[in-house]
Amino acid sequence: MATRGDLISFRPDVRVLDATLRDGGLVNNFRFSDEFVRDLYKMNIKASVDYMEFGYKASKQIFDPNDFGRWKFCNDDDVFEIVGDNDTGLKLSCMLDVGRTDFKNDVRNKSDSPFELMRVATYIHQIPSAIEMIEDAKKKGYEVSVNIMAVSKVNDDELTKGLELLAKSPVDIIYIVDSFGAYYPEQIERLAQKYIEIGNKYGKQIGIHAHNNQQLAFANTITALRCGVSWLDCTVSGMGRGAGNCYSESLLAFLKNPKYDLVPVMDFAAKHMLALKDEGYKWGYDISYLLTAILNSHPSSAIKFVKDGRTDYSNFLHELMDVE
Amino acid sequence: MATRGDLISFRPDVRVLDATLRDGGLVNNFRFSDEFVRDLYKMNIKASVDYMEFGYKASKQIFDPNDFGRWKFCNDDDVFEIVGDNDTGLKLSCMLDVGRTDFKNDVRNKSDSPFELMRVATYIHQIPSAIEMIEDAKKKGYEVSVNIMAVSKVNDDELTKGLELLAKSPVDIIYIVDSFGAYYPEQIERLAQKYIEIGNKYGKQIGIHAHNNQQLAFANTITALRCGVSWLDCTVSGMGRGAGNCYSESLLAFLKNPKYDLVPVMDFAAKHMLALKDEGYKWGYDISYLLTAILNSHPSSAIKFVKDGRTDYSNFLHELMDVE
Repeated sequence: MATRGDLISFRPDVRVLDATLRDGGLVNNFRFSDEFVRDLYKMNIKASVDYMEFGYKASKQIFDPNDFGRWKFCNDDDVFEIVGDNDTGLKLSCMLDVGRTDFKNDVRNKSDSPFELMRVATYIHQIPSAIEMIEDAKKKGYEVSVNIMAVSKVNDDELTKGLELLAKSPVDIIYIVDSFGAYYPEQIERLAQKYIEIGNKYGKQIGIHAHNNQQLAFANTITALRCGVSWLDCTVSGMGRGAGNCYSESLLAFLKNPKYDLVPVMDFAAKHMLALKDEGYKWGYDISYLLTAILNSHPSSAIKFVKDGRTDYSNFLHELMDVE
Repeated sequence: MATRGDLISFRPDVRVLDATLRDGGLVNNFRFSDEFVRDLYKMNIKASVDYMEFGYKASKQIFDPNDFGRWKFCNDDDVFEIVGDNDTGLKLSCMLDVGRTDFKNDVRNKSDSPFELMRVATYIHQIPSAIEMIEDAKKKGYEVSVNIMAVSKVNDDELTKGLELLAKSPVDIIYIVDSFGAYYPEQIERLAQKYIEIGNKYGKQIGIHAHNNQQLAFANTITALRCGVSWLDCTVSGMGRGAGNCYSESLLAFLKNPKYDLVPVMDFAAKHMLALKDEGYKWGYDISYLLTAILNSHPSSAIKFVKDGRTDYSNFLHELMDVE
């Protein structure tokens, strides 16, 4: 396997993106206190994290703002309220879901917005719509990345075609997304090699967004890094849908760039993440997430299983097998 | 990297060893109820686990039996009480710590004992004593394995010499042991290659015993497997000292040999492991274990940190840095 970098030096191409508000928002319907958001913003600055994702720019035609906290919608002015003119090294991003974002109206020009990076999230069959959004965001002045979700359900041939289409678009970064936490490190290696090969051809960088269903989110992230992937998503204490994500704590402890600082992340985790758990919000490894992962399924049924306080894992396995 | 096997077929050389009582006993001073031990034994039979480790054969001259549950000492008769004549496919093992085992008196001949496998645990500087124990156990009729503990603290040259010494002994299996949970998968690859190279020369099999300080126990175990390591330690729900071990659930879900059955393991976990957690026994990932791992230190200070209910991780990091 071709590898890039080693365990002692650091790679200047690496970008760490904190997705705590966005993927974590799927746990609590984006109902974070302003104190949480401000402290997270300050934490990311102190820790020299490269990008902080505030949430989604979801369409208010499709989602009722009363049903969610405000980071589901990421109004530019709400972000400005937290970050002022953000005169820092931390860049801000938000996510645009294909088909669920009124991007023509809600994405302003970059010069009027707090964001530097727009992240388009697409399923494989929506790629032409994704490209429309990518082109729009590029025209408005943003860096743009694209997440192809649920690739573990996509056949290899289709994936190659989708990647080629995206690589020919003006997108800057293409993300490997293990939505179901289904991949083992050796599969991530193969996937990373595929993405990097196509990315190199068209001058695109590659990123990874991992899920922790099998306690492999961190392992898969550093495996991808070793293969040459540059953009690394993480969340504090792994907060994210279902089994959650790659822990920021583990990732920053691993990366050797002296600018990254683990201490503010640990302080934030001790103050805020333990409190969220105490309030009853649930995420992180559970056997039920392992089961949806090995069956390469969406974690929604496992999320319900955990929420209902169930522990009858073998019944749950039978239910999953019946559905498949 | 040379790899062995793939993700679809299975390797007949693989042996799964359940170390729940032994490594988990370090969490609760081996005070497992008889029901727990009987159910675990039945679980391992149903799940077709290859070996079950009952605990240590610790010297009663050194340790007071009143301070521990009986699996610290693993009297043959106590094991017979649980397993009868063990007329099953499950083989039994126990661990012999160099310098803390009265092996001449406490290890009977295999024909009089419930055990098939004796596992010698040694530090690098104790290898000559380990070899004495290995020879004794072989003479008494056992399969014998050896764990070289804390190898992340051993320099490479010394490790080569130690491995050569052990490989020339009558031991059957040599284990890679990541006592501090300090290794990343790419280091496990290099270590596995080293152990396998020496093992192949002398006809020894290689095993791995991983710790979960960085949530890498499962990733490191399947990485080693892919490199050709055959003996895989795991514990139910990862129960083990500090951050714990590779989860049996994850490992059995991964292995493709149709004989392995995840269902009894999930049922056991739901019945017993959640109850142990409810009783207040603590193991599993915590930032403090991540910190001892990245500093390549024994987890004892982190175990105390967690036991004391502390969450001031940055103070703890400073304490660790002062000691190093």
